Amino acid sequence: MLIRLDHIGIAVQNIQDALVFFQDALGMELDHVALEEGGKTSVAFMPMGDGELELVQPLESESGLAKFLAKRGEGIHHICFEVDDMDAALARLVAHGAQLIDAKPRVNASGTRYAFIHPKSAHGVLIELYQRA
Amino acid sequence: MLIRLDHIGIAVQNIQDALVFFQDALGMELDHVALEEGGKTSVAFMPMGDGELELVQPLESESGLAKFLAKRGEGIHHICFEVDDMDAALARLVAHGAQLIDAKPRVNASGTRYAFIHPKSAHGVLIELYQRA
Repeated sequence: MLIRLDHIGIAVQNIQDALVFFQDALGMELDHVALEEGGKTSVAFMPMGDGELELVQPLESESGLAKFLAKRGEGIHHICFEVDDMDAALARLVAHGAQLIDAKPRVNASGTRYAFIHPKSAHGVLIELYQRA
Repeated sequence: MLIRLDHIGIAVQNIQDALVFFQDALGMELDHVALEEGGKTSVAFMPMGDGELELVQPLESESGLAKFLAKRGEGIHHICFEVDDMDAALARLVAHGAQLIDAKPRVNASGTRYAFIHPKSAHGVLIELYQRA
């Protein structure tokens, strides 16, 4: 049902600072940096096999991402899997008692459906599922 | 220099409990469970594209993994990249001021060299590098 790991999201205070490590010291490639979520988040996309590593920086203080940073500091924020059937994936999770953050998938600007599983159900891991539009 | 994401390591209190979520509810496949690090750790290997997700359970209370669990609870513990030239990768990191946990790579039972980068240098992410033997 899961197709592949799409990305690992790393919460950072400042993307340019983080690139000094991930790009210069570690040797990863930067594809591009873009504003996401209507300008609430800045994201650096770094390709990695058939997925990518994403550095995510909050641009407003009230977002979940900003609160995560304030509470836990920088680090891995979430992992995202591509699924081929979002409805079936969410139904299976609910049938097994998993708690979802999004009972119904959200839809982004390009029509992609995505939903988060609550980390309480996922052994402390914030998991995003998405299905290509 | 980095070749691919090899695995994501998730620290769990009990592998069998965690499989109820990752295998039954999320639908991931379990390849096998094995003892690692001379019996100090139990690891469930779950294939994921050209890498894998690993559920890691400490079997002794003094390990770094056990301390991580006691302090932070369950969740993502580390990510591991395969590199084609470990010495060059570590030299590049040091040249850029990154702090290593292992200045010289460790070698596991099958002869694989691996080394950890300190999360203080990696924006809160514990990164393992390894090179095939």
